[in-house]
Amino acid sequence: MKLNDSRNPAMVMDLYELTMSYGYFKECDWNTRVAFDLFYRKNPDGGGYAIAGGLEQIIDYIEHLHFEEADIAYLRSLNLFDEDFLTYLRDFSFKGDLYAFPEGTVIYPNEPVITVVAPMIDAQLVETSLLLHFNHQSLIATKASRIVRAADGRPVSDMGARRAHNMDAAVYGARAAYIGGAAGTATVLAAQMFGIPAIGTMAHSWVMGFPDELTAFNKYAKTYPDNTVLLVDTYNVLKSGIPNAIKTAKEVLAPMGRRLKAIRIDSGDLAYLSKRSREMLDDAGLFDCRIIVSNSLDEYTITSLLNQESTIDSFGVGERLITSKNDPVFGGVYKLAAIEKDGVFQPKIKISENPEKITNPGLKQVYRIFNEEDYAVADLIAGYDETLDFSKPVPYIDPQSPWKRNAFENCYAAALQVHIFKSGKRIYKLPSLDEIRAHVADQLNNKVWAEELRFEYPHQHYLAMTPSYYRMKMSLLDNGR
Amino acid sequence: MKLNDSRNPAMVMDLYELTMSYGYFKECDWNTRVAFDLFYRKNPDGGGYAIAGGLEQIIDYIEHLHFEEADIAYLRSLNLFDEDFLTYLRDFSFKGDLYAFPEGTVIYPNEPVITVVAPMIDAQLVETSLLLHFNHQSLIATKASRIVRAADGRPVSDMGARRAHNMDAAVYGARAAYIGGAAGTATVLAAQMFGIPAIGTMAHSWVMGFPDELTAFNKYAKTYPDNTVLLVDTYNVLKSGIPNAIKTAKEVLAPMGRRLKAIRIDSGDLAYLSKRSREMLDDAGLFDCRIIVSNSLDEYTITSLLNQESTIDSFGVGERLITSKNDPVFGGVYKLAAIEKDGVFQPKIKISENPEKITNPGLKQVYRIFNEEDYAVADLIAGYDETLDFSKPVPYIDPQSPWKRNAFENCYAAALQVHIFKSGKRIYKLPSLDEIRAHVADQLNNKVWAEELRFEYPHQHYLAMTPSYYRMKMSLLDNGR
Repeated sequence: MKLNDSRNPAMVMDLYELTMSYGYFKECDWNTRVAFDLFYRKNPDGGGYAIAGGLEQIIDYIEHLHFEEADIAYLRSLNLFDEDFLTYLRDFSFKGDLYAFPEGTVIYPNEPVITVVAPMIDAQLVETSLLLHFNHQSLIATKASRIVRAADGRPVSDMGARRAHNMDAAVYGARAAYIGGAAGTATVLAAQMFGIPAIGTMAHSWVMGFPDELTAFNKYAKTYPDNTVLLVDTYNVLKSGIPNAIKTAKEVLAPMGRRLKAIRIDSGDLAYLSKRSREMLDDAGLFDCRIIVSNSLDEYTITSLLNQESTIDSFGVGERLITSKNDPVFGGVYKLAAIEKDGVFQPKIKISENPEKITNPGLKQVYRIFNEEDYAVADLIAGYDETLDFSKPVPYIDPQSPWKRNAFENCYAAALQVHIFKSGKRIYKLPSLDEIRAHVADQLNNKVWAEELRFEYPHQHYLAMTPSYYRMKMSLLDNGR
Repeated sequence: MKLNDSRNPAMVMDLYELTMSYGYFKECDWNTRVAFDLFYRKNPDGGGYAIAGGLEQIIDYIEHLHFEEADIAYLRSLNLFDEDFLTYLRDFSFKGDLYAFPEGTVIYPNEPVITVVAPMIDAQLVETSLLLHFNHQSLIATKASRIVRAADGRPVSDMGARRAHNMDAAVYGARAAYIGGAAGTATVLAAQMFGIPAIGTMAHSWVMGFPDELTAFNKYAKTYPDNTVLLVDTYNVLKSGIPNAIKTAKEVLAPMGRRLKAIRIDSGDLAYLSKRSREMLDDAGLFDCRIIVSNSLDEYTITSLLNQESTIDSFGVGERLITSKNDPVFGGVYKLAAIEKDGVFQPKIKISENPEKITNPGLKQVYRIFNEEDYAVADLIAGYDETLDFSKPVPYIDPQSPWKRNAFENCYAAALQVHIFKSGKRIYKLPSLDEIRAHVADQLNNKVWAEELRFEYPHQHYLAMTPSYYRMKMSLLDNGR
């Protein structure tokens, strides 16, 4: 298969999804429905939150989930499956239900961002792809939101394609970065596919390709008089780049009635260079020429640069965004929560030596609890059949200190999971990318405590349980499964 | 565009490749040929070497590089380009030459792994994709080779899809891991596309899906009597998992004349659990039952486990391989080295405040120098028109200590760059994936000094220059470009 060929995303799965499915097919009543929860255990970068990404691709994946003749032939060649099962796969489509937090929801550890309720094989087969899309886009959306917040209103653009982990990482990473608040992307295919603003000007090779820097700048200004952004660090920012940029502004752009839009600095000390550049540009009357910087930036370097009163108007961010360099793994997992028996879902729990790896069993509801000022004070897990009345105090257990008596008072609650697929059919209307992006911004600006947004030792969001749900979990633990 | 649709990899580029190309198109003699070198500056993970990956995909990309009507329409919508240029793009195909180290070559910083000699626009347009494919697959191939070396002959398999940075990262990452020495992959599409051995057995959900662990094991053994691998850590490895696995071996497999192939441990202290499990299996006569472990493994944890005399036969490696977690960025760059003028390539150098960022200018040859025992003692850069005679001492300069007089004696040299494209036409026959993988193993086992293979503070390979090439570089530095 070549780069240009289409591929079947159904085949992006761990082989064990198929070996287990074959086992169910041969040895079980595989029409038995089960429930799996997708959740994660730790916010990346030691943060206080994450952003749920990838749901649109998960929906697309499930809607088109099928096996082609070539796939069946390949699976036959493995000598692991019989013809009955291969025929079953040939006719397979997803027949289950799926519930999920809408894409762009601020999420916290240990709550079911996605729940699949489906026949055993259907629920098992989708595991790898659900995790892959959720993990990747949540990782990048979360990182982008951190970088954008550090930039404090200044635009941040993704320029990471060359350091991305291959093409999808560049393209879907750009999508996730946009959700997280990036203003644009340099990756053309991402801009084309998702309608993200495309950004891009020149590299050092442009400047080196002409006999001298001024000629290079002048040629660029003639080509793009309305959008002249000059890279000023090929030789020496203050001695050559800025003086030549000013000359281009005066000698090429001014006679055409145009202004120099921006300069970009890609090396050296960005705090010092931005301040000196600003002075030189202002002295030349180029008050409206913006200063863009790039070079291994992330939320920490940007915070540090702004703390030193750098005169930076915009950030180009590459490898540290597109790989989430400090913490490149988003650890979403997909765990069995319940099995249907005689029409009732029996809760299942995964025991572990590590307490943080014990799962939350059973079918459940998840609510975000808001106070009167619309701030999200906690999330709450309840049994699937509980009815909660927030017109009076709603008692809850904090699993970190279960002996305390607590209640939510003067609060309202919003259910977080939305019904996406019903018996294999999508019943959910996809929001636009801009709606998802606006949803992220609204939550971070208006709903999430500032204490959870800190980079250093943020407050950890409370995940509360109703007393009844908590008792059910404890009784399962007592029984050892 | 949906997941299942084919995509045009040509559009996976930074927009600035196009804005610069348009500038060349409008303001330059864009038939002028230029030379770009692709190289990197630092080995990942503080290592002593890297493995070149991705060349097959780069070749595929270049051979099929074109723009479709939908792409032209999108580019038109950006209002950056005129119709002449869009027509030029519609008819575009790569017309240049490309030279590269064969895929799987052991590489070192600052040598041109790929050189493109092509008309300005052709050379510029391919930048992003060349870097993306080279950076991603070199990153994972290098990481895999380190993990495989740590495993010291025990098979290592890739199980990382769920934590990969989207689908390509899982698929091409599995390919790169195989080149680097992994024995197989769990990612079905990668196994299908590249003929890599597919591996996979069961997850905890299999064990939890049955009333008890023994039933789950027995059902699996009945389904796969020839390939029974049991996951033993769902409840308790030593008190439940291993005793039940032994029962399955005796009560289900033995009566069928089969043996238990392996058990897998995915949590807990893998050193302790593997040793105790080995004793229990041996006591039960299951001497040939192999022990597979997984759980956030990399070269460091594997080294440490083996130093404690763990009785482990095989490793499953996930997130730390597929994301190269400790160092997830491979920093390949693509820099202008020469511009043709009146039929002669004029060398160009990129000056920088940081000495390590100064480029090696001009068209050049790169040799690997071997001693009489076939060990690679250094690499050597020479001017493109130099003739070297290794039947006598060949003088060279070490740029770290240019005052010393050195010569290669009793050595032989192998040119590293191979001519891949000539005037846009491929003249290189692609090796098979297994040939690439064998080439990596041969170099690491027989050609590279052990001192360069150490994880901690390895020897840094010498990159020497001929006196004539070194003088040319110094004179360019003196002239300031």
